[in-house]
This record gives sequence, C-alpha cells and structure tokens, in this order.
Amino acid sequence: MAHHRYTPTHYHVAIGPHQPVLRVAPGDTISTTTVDARGGDASGQQVTDRGNPQTGPFYVEGAEPGDTLVVHFDRIWPNRKQGWTGTAVAANVLDPGFKPGFTDEVDLAEWEVDLAQGTARLTSPPSPLGKLDLPLAPMLGCFGVAPPRGQAISTATSSTHGGNMDYRGFVQGATVYFPVFVPGALLHVGDCHAVQGDGEIVGTGIEISAEVTMTVELIKNHPINWPRAENAEFIMTVGNARPLDQCVQHATTEMVRWLTSDFGLDARTAHLLLGQCVQYDLGNIFDPAYTMVCKVSKRVLDGIGAVRK
Amino acid sequence: MAHHRYTPTHYHVAIGPHQPVLRVAPGDTISTTTVDARGGDASGQQVTDRGNPQTGPFYVEGAEPGDTLVVHFDRIWPNRKQGWTGTAVAANVLDPGFKPGFTDEVDLAEWEVDLAQGTARLTSPPSPLGKLDLPLAPMLGCFGVAPPRGQAISTATSSTHGGNMDYRGFVQGATVYFPVFVPGALLHVGDCHAVQGDGEIVGTGIEISAEVTMTVELIKNHPINWPRAENAEFIMTVGNARPLDQCVQHATTEMVRWLTSDFGLDARTAHLLLGQCVQYDLGNIFDPAYTMVCKVSKRVLDGIGAVRK
Amino acid sequence: MAHHRYTPTHYHVAIGPHQPVLRVAPGDTISTTTVDARGGDASGQQVTDRGNPQTGPFYVEGAEPGDTLVVHFDRIWPNRKQGWTGTAVAANVLDPGFKPGFTDEVDLAEWEVDLAQGTARLTSPPSPLGKLDLPLAPMLGCFGVAPPRGQAISTATSSTHGGNMDYRGFVQGATVYFPVFVPGALLHVGDCHAVQGDGEIVGTGIEISAEVTMTVELIKNHPINWPRAENAEFIMTVGNARPLDQCVQHATTEMVRWLTSDFGLDARTAHLLLGQCVQYDLGNIFDPAYTMVCKVSKRVLDGIGAVRK
Amino acid sequence: MAHHRYTPTHYHVAIGPHQPVLRVAPGDTISTTTVDARGGDASGQQVTDRGNPQTGPFYVEGAEPGDTLVVHFDRIWPNRKQGWTGTAVAANVLDPGFKPGFTDEVDLAEWEVDLAQGTARLTSPPSPLGKLDLPLAPMLGCFGVAPPRGQAISTATSSTHGGNMDYRGFVQGATVYFPVFVPGALLHVGDCHAVQGDGEIVGTGIEISAEVTMTVELIKNHPINWPRAENAEFIMTVGNARPLDQCVQHATTEMVRWLTSDFGLDARTAHLLLGQCVQYDLGNIFDPAYTMVCKVSKRVLDGIGAVRK
Repeated sequence: MAHHRYTPTHYHVAIGPHQPVLRVAPGDTISTTTVDARGGDASGQQVTDRGNPQTGPFYVEGAEPGDTLVVHFDRIWPNRKQGWTGTAVAANVLDPGFKPGFTDEVDLAEWEVDLAQGTARLTSPPSPLGKLDLPLAPMLGCFGVAPPRGQAISTATSSTHGGNMDYRGFVQGATVYFPVFVPGALLHVGDCHAVQGDGEIVGTGIEISAEVTMTVELIKNHPINWPRAENAEFIMTVGNARPLDQCVQHATTEMVRWLTSDFGLDARTAHLLLGQCVQYDLGNIFDPAYTMVCKVSKRVLDGIGAVRK
Repeated sequence: MAHHRYTPTHYHVAIGPHQPVLRVAPGDTISTTTVDARGGDASGQQVTDRGNPQTGPFYVEGAEPGDTLVVHFDRIWPNRKQGWTGTAVAANVLDPGFKPGFTDEVDLAEWEVDLAQGTARLTSPPSPLGKLDLPLAPMLGCFGVAPPRGQAISTATSSTHGGNMDYRGFVQGATVYFPVFVPGALLHVGDCHAVQGDGEIVGTGIEISAEVTMTVELIKNHPINWPRAENAEFIMTVGNARPLDQCVQHATTEMVRWLTSDFGLDARTAHLLLGQCVQYDLGNIFDPAYTMVCKVSKRVLDGIGAVRK
Repeated sequence: MAHHRYTPTHYHVAIGPHQPVLRVAPGDTISTTTVDARGGDASGQQVTDRGNPQTGPFYVEGAEPGDTLVVHFDRIWPNRKQGWTGTAVAANVLDPGFKPGFTDEVDLAEWEVDLAQGTARLTSPPSPLGKLDLPLAPMLGCFGVAPPRGQAISTATSSTHGGNMDYRGFVQGATVYFPVFVPGALLHVGDCHAVQGDGEIVGTGIEISAEVTMTVELIKNHPINWPRAENAEFIMTVGNARPLDQCVQHATTEMVRWLTSDFGLDARTAHLLLGQCVQYDLGNIFDPAYTMVCKVSKRVLDGIGAVRK
Repeated sequence: MAHHRYTPTHYHVAIGPHQPVLRVAPGDTISTTTVDARGGDASGQQVTDRGNPQTGPFYVEGAEPGDTLVVHFDRIWPNRKQGWTGTAVAANVLDPGFKPGFTDEVDLAEWEVDLAQGTARLTSPPSPLGKLDLPLAPMLGCFGVAPPRGQAISTATSSTHGGNMDYRGFVQGATVYFPVFVPGALLHVGDCHAVQGDGEIVGTGIEISAEVTMTVELIKNHPINWPRAENAEFIMTVGNARPLDQCVQHATTEMVRWLTSDFGLDARTAHLLLGQCVQYDLGNIFDPAYTMVCKVSKRVLDGIGAVRK
C-alpha cells in the first residue's frame, strides 16, 4: 500500500494504450497533478496541447480484462487561483436557431478561486454575477481507462471506458468503478473543474489545474459494462452516448445488473425499487457523447437488507 | 378570492377545449378531487375510462391568449389508502433487447399508503421491498391548460400546454406557470402519484386518487413559451419533447428568456450564470413526449441582486 | 360508387372530430380542392388561417374503430400557376450554430408552375436556380383521419393518424391506408406541394393549391398501428415521431406486422427479407414529429410467392 | 501511376495510426483482398479476429492533415461463393418491447453467391425467401482513414474518418473523399457485403470476402469535415452519429459547404436548391453511430451551370 507521487512530464488527448508512466499495486495511492483543459499548469503556463490533456496512464499490477478497477478519489483540489469558463450556452443545448442576444464578443470568462475560503468569483467580463461567491466543488471532468479493441478515444468524448463525462458527482470522496479492457487497466486522469453546472452547458466548468490523490483497488473476475460509482449516499451507474435517452438506457440497464448480481436482488424487486426510488443526474450535454447517471440511495438498499457480495 | 369546492361528475382523457365545469376569478381557490390513472376514485371504484382522466376544465375569468396562468398547489394529498404501480422498467428505458429476467408474471403491484404517518409500503407481490416505508411525496403527474390551434391532446403525452410531465417537483407548495392559449385558459388536473421515482420508468408512480386544492392567478400580457414553475428554492422551466436532448433545449431556452426578460439579466450574465449554476431534473421518460426541468437557485438570483419585474 | 364533388367553405388547422362536410360510401370517389399552406386558394387569395388548412373531414359510412380506411389518390394536381417556398434550410436540419452565410434577407421564394409542361421554375429571388425547370411531382404534405381519444392534433405535426408527413411518395397513383379511430374515419386532406425535396428541409415544398380526386374503401375489422401505403412498385409503412430513429422503429415494426399478418410470411422470413431487401425514405424532418417510410418491393414479394390475404 | 498488389498478412479491428502495409503515390491503383466481418477469407477459413477486420493501412505519399484523400473504387467483388447474414431485425430498429415472434433459434443464415450470374440466394434456414435470386450489389461496409488526435476507433462504429457506415452506395464505380488527419492518410478497407438492405438492420449484409481494386488521388490543401462521395448521378455527403437527426445535420451542413465552396454557389441558391432537390439515403442504423447520406443530382448542378473548381 505504497503512496506514489508522480509529476507529469507529458500528457495525452486520447485515452488509450499509451506507455504507462507508473506501475502501482492494488491498494496503492497515487498523488499527481493535472493540467487544465487547455493544457495550463499550476503556474498558468500552457505546457501541452489543449483538449482535456490527461495525466498518466497508470498501470495497475494484476489488472486483466474482465476485472473491475476501483478508483477512490481521496483528494481533488485546484492548485492555482485562476480559472476560466466559456461564456455562451452551447448551440446544441438551446433551441435550433435561438438568438442568444449578446451585444459583446467574449470567448472566455475569468474566475478567481479562493482556495482557503473555498469559493470562486467571476472577475471578467464585467457582470453582476461577479458579486457572487460560488462554493468550490472540484471534480474531474475527464478520466478513464484504456478502451477495448486497441482503441484510443479522444478526450472530447466518452464511452464504456469513461472519458469526458463531466459529472458533478465525481468529487473527492467518490469511488468510481471501471471495466478493465487491457492489462494494467491504464488509468488516465485530467480536466478538473473547480465548479460546474449540470451538463457543462457552456462547454466548460471553471477549468483549472489540480492536485489529485487517488487510491486504486482491483476486483478480480468481475466484468461490468459501464462505469459505476458510489459516495456516502448513493450507488450510481453511468451511461455515455447520444441522445440522452440512450444514456438513460445504458445507465438503468447497468443498475439493474448491479442490483441483481452484486446486491442479489431478484429481478422483480430491482424493477419495483427503481420504479419508485430511482434518481437521475445529468452529466455532460455538450460533447459528442452525453452522460446520464442513474442513482439508488444506500438508505433504500439498507432498508430492504440488500447486502453487497 | 372565493374558495370553490367542485365534485367531479365526469373526466377527460385529452386536454382541450372542453366545456368548463366551473368559472373562477384570479385569486380564487379551488378544492376538488382527482381519480387515479385508471379512473379509480377515493373508494377504489373505477368511475371513468383509464388513461390519466382529468378533472375540469376550470375557466379562469379574464384569461386570454398571451397571458400567463399561475397555479399554486396549496394541497395535493391522497384520499385513499390503496395505490398501485407497474412492475417492470419500461422497454424504452432499458437497452434494446435487454432481458429483464423475471420468473413471475405480475402486471400490477399494490401499495398501502399510511396517510397519517405519511408513508407507502409495497404489499403485493411478495418482495423484500415490502420491508421498506417510503415517505409520501404526492405530486400531480398530468395537468395543464387547453393547447393552441383548437387542439385536444391526449393525457398520455405532454407539450407546451403541460400534460403528462410526471415531474416529482410538482408537489404541494409548488407554483406552476402556463401559457394561456384559449380564453379562460381551461385548467385540467389529474394523475396523482403518492410516490414516484425520477422518470416514471415503470410507467407509473404509486397511482392514487387525491384531493387537490389550488389557487389561480393571472399575469396579463405576459406570453411564455413553456411551462415554468417555482418552489422555495428554485425557479424552473419545463421542456416536453423527444428525445431528452430536445427537452433540455426547450427548457434551457425558456430559462434564458425568463432570466433576461422577467429578471432583467443581460444575456451574457444569463449564459455565464447558467454555465456554472444550472441544474436539471428528469421528468417523464416513459411516454410519447419526455420531460426535462431546468432549475436555477433563488439563492443565486438573490446573490446577484436579480429582482423579478 | 358515386363521384362526389365538394367545394370547401371552411378549413381546419387541427385534424380531429370536426363536423363532417360530406358523407360518402366505401367505393365512392371525392373530387375537391385544397388551399396552400398559408390558406391561399386557386386565385392566390388567402381564404382561411395559415398552417396547412385541411379540406373536410369526409365521413365514410360504416367505418368503425378497428377498421382500415383505404384512400386511393386518383389525381393530385395544382390548380394555379404560382407557388412559394421557404428560402433557408431549417436550423434543426443543420449543425447547431452553423452560420448559413446569407447576405440577403428573403423569407419567401416564388415559383412559376407550368401545368401544361409539368414543370416549376424559380422566379424570385434572383438565383442561378431560376435557369432550371424542375419536373412537377405534386403530392399531399398533410392529410389523415381523426385521431383516437377525442384528440384534435395540429396540422403542424403527425402521428398514427397521419398528419403532416410531407412524404414525396404521396402522389397521385398512391394508395394510403389509415387506422380508423372514430366512426366515419373523418378524412382530412390538404397541403399540396408541386415539388418537394426529401425532408421538406426549408420548411416547405413548392406550396400550392390543388385539385384532389380520391376514392375511398374500407377494410372491416382490420386494425393497423400506423399508416401504410402502396404504389406500383412498393408496399410502404410510415412512422411519425422524433427522433428519426423512432420513426424507423415504428415503420419497421409495422412492416413486420404487415408481412406476417396480411402476407402470411413466417416471422423468420419477414426478418430475413427485410435484412437484405428493405428500403427507407425520409419524409418530414422539419416539424415537431419527423417521418420515415419503410418500403418493400412488390417484385420481391411476388418472387417468393407472398400473396396478400 | 503504379498498380500495386497487396496480399494481407494481418488485419485491424480499429481504424488508426497503425504501421502502413504499403506506400503508394497519388494516382496509384491498389488491388487487394478483404476478409468478411468475422475474419473469414476467400477459402471460408477464419484467419483473424472478428469485427470487420480491415486490410491496410495504405500510406499515400504526400498526404497531410488538411488535404482530401480521393478513393475511387474500380472494383469490389466477392471472391468466394458463401455468404452469411444475421436472421433477426436488431432490437434497436424495432419498437421497444416488440416481440418478433420467432419459433426457431437461428443465429446465422447462409447464402450462396453465384458470381457468374451475379445473384445471391438464401440456402439456410429453410424459408420461402430461398426461392428468390437477389441481384448482387457488392459494397464496402467499413473503410476509412486514421482519425485525428491519435485516435484509433473501433470498426464497429463510424465518425468523420469514415468507418462502419454500411451505405449501399459504396459500390464499385463510386468515388469517396475523406479528410486527411494524419500524414499518409492511412487508408483501411474491409467488410464487403454482396447484398445489403438499407440500414443493415439485421446487423449484417450478405457478409463475404472480396477483391478490392481502388485508385487513390490527393487534393492538396482542401480540408473537408465529413466524408463526401460521388457516382455518375449524384454528389453525396455522409453524416455519422446518433440519433439519425444528427447524421442529417452533419450531412446537410457538409453539402451546403460543398455547394458554396467547391461549386461556387451563393448560400441562398444552395439552400433553395437543397429545399426542393435534396435526397437522403439511410446508411447504417444498427451500430453505435448511424449514417445518413445527403445527395444532390449532378443533372441539377449541370442545369444551373454549377462547375466544380
């Protein structure tokens, strides 16, 4: 259960079977840093190409196709004071042909992040929004494992391997489960958002570089179809696709599988429970693939005596 | 500001320009009852055709096309102890071809509702879920106003006029805003769910008859494009369409309109604010039209000094 | 087998249970006229509200829910020389945010129709396209029967009852089959296009008033789920919904039903045949509901000895 | 203008920056063979992993990002007599929950291909469809160039780089244009179908190994966004995405670009022309990404004097 520190020297804008930067054992902890979506590091300098550059990949010893990789985020926290965001709701999130009605031409907004106080504030362009301190909720927008079939998939999008999911629930304290498709799993991490609204509808959260500490585990011989996750309150499944309807199909199907296999519920109980207790969150609705998250409260599972195998 | 009591004698399974059952003035309160989705009343007897039968319509004096009808739900509460639900997640919410794996054949589940304690419990079929008391959160699944162009639209679906939105946020205490398309607005209400998961993914909440008390107001010369709503914490806009992506487009566009017109934000501020603060909830994902709700926290609006005109 | 002539005195912009204008028997032929999408008649005068106004409805004696109404178009032909079209591909048919790059502001284009020669030519705005004679292929964009559940549905959209399908195959010589939802079926017709590209992507074909002659028949106790059609070469099924994927699902499912029920194919043969022989056409991709048409060649059906019951 | 013959020794199930198997110059012709979708070669033996294995990649000298690669298919013809297909319309092409009603359990159908006569005939399972000779129309289902950003993308899907488009128009005689994303373009070819219905709705055409002869050219400094194509009658643009609506958006937008840039039409003329003359074909509607093709008749372009630059 070693604690590794890795300082990145290069980054990737596709998640795939790249040369590992570090080999770690199940149970180990990794502390590293991520650059922002345009390749800016803790000093604000652009050190690599833009497009959600990823730190890694990390090779997890013993991980084989058919296993589940467990990633627990111990800490996700910005390591600088300046963040930036888009300034316009994306055209694909508004009615076709709707005129947004701007009178200015501003591509990027600047935000000042107060790491001590845990807030962010708009500093440019001038706007009444600059009066407001938004509470930080730092999350990783894009991370995942090498996909199947020898693929390398752009960090602009997402699929069964994770990727650019932009889900506000992926904060420190959360645990994420990935299907392992290649030996070593090859974990990539990047794209911290200090704050983000649902959907990442301006194409960005408050983009920022960050320190990330995470602990990896392995569940051997435990194939899953889509990323899963949990926090103190919920178990969650993630569907990445288009349209959103298909994300819901993937995430809900994966939740039925999880409830019936790992939690041992009979299929009828799983369906009845979902019918009256399921919740959904919206992840990304900006990128080529969108994301929906299906959630079930741990309180409900405890209440019916469902125990994870 | 009269308080009317109306006992229904008939119901409608399309929302349209039907003969009004009552004429009320802006500021008036109406107390009435609704039958369940299969036409069952407080005694459990089927008194009308199934399919989300609607009570009403109520004619609001002075309402004209181009106005906004305001409906505040003072009370939505079941008036009997037996509810029922579907037992299988709908095929359109699961991956195409996914086999749910049931070994039984049960079409309806029965739930006992404890109105005093405020809980619901599964009584049939036998299932570990029967161990759990779910807290009641009674809501109206289907309600709305007569649509434009002389249309009468099935209560199976939804559009700009409201309809079968199945949004868990439409509980007592909520206020809903509708565009007025015909003189009198012609408000219909029905389809109470004692409890419901997001999306109504088994095709039902806990379906039940109910008492509904609501107060109507009118905002003259105030055209809106989609239903809007608010509660203590949020302002909300509602998009009804397919796929969900289009619901998000409608709801987000309507929120931009609301923020820039009624709240007087400049367009840039509206976009920046939505980017980092917007939230979305999933309404119906079972019916011909799906529903997404776009939300902005009143705390955020207060924090930047945005005041509704 | 009477031949009725009906001169319209009024029109409808929703298809629904309106008062019939004529009662006809199965086998009868009706000759009437339709106005253009903005209510313009043969003289070019606007005589009713815009929005695909419908002539009718025609009550077919003996038609009951569960029957199939057969409509054979003997003749669909413009009755004036001036048509008009939209001038810009609709925003929902182009990539979100794509700038079309016009330097002019023209909402309507004008076309001259040469009924003798059977061609149409752009006359305004000035464009090299004005050099070209397009062959006339007059079709009905919007027609159908009264929908179920007492609904009246806007002529802007389409569903199981037909409506605004804008399919280029609905020309004279074609036969269309509709499910009967109400006594008398209540057939409405309107919205002739002298010419139209697939999808009606500028929001219009060459909109024009027309003479329509059609012969109706009835197939008793023959429920169908979606409109069906045929011409000399193909049998066809029609799916109206959003997104297009769902249109394909509806149309293909209806074709499987048709092949296995009326043509008596075993299910396996129906699937195998569709796999290698199916064709699809795009109807409307502009309106609230889109349209896809599933086609099977009669030559294929003949080749395997499939005979319609 | 050399004519290269390449006999494959290995194949790829992702299209990406693999080691080239041959370097050719613009103007050169390549003759090679492709295995079927399950890796079966001309002798019917499985020689590589299943999943649309690709022959190549071929490196085109001088090709750089920003160029257009031109691929003219001189010949696409099966090189064996046995083909196979799926036997059931895919669940995602039918209404959710629709029961296909099979009484047998057959996963694969077998077809005999008569290369001299140019026909295919079902030989197993027994079915009246076996009476019919279908005319051969051999096409490539999956081919393309290395995608951008260092990606390698599964041959199960498609995007801007081509891939698994399953379009019936990609037959011998057709010319396809690809954006060049990497030096040498890296052309991959595979997945011949002797016959295919629109959409590849049983998940396969008549899958077969083939001989492919193609001639490549290069258009320098000519960036395009999506694959384009042409045959004797039409120019075509290809959109690959989900849902189909988005395919239509991509293909139509690319056609507007083509008409206004290469053919020099003013934007208004391009829109007016598409409105009344556009045609669409359905490619794949089975895989993760679907395909729609937008077509304009060369006769129309000639008729208005539009000349390609």
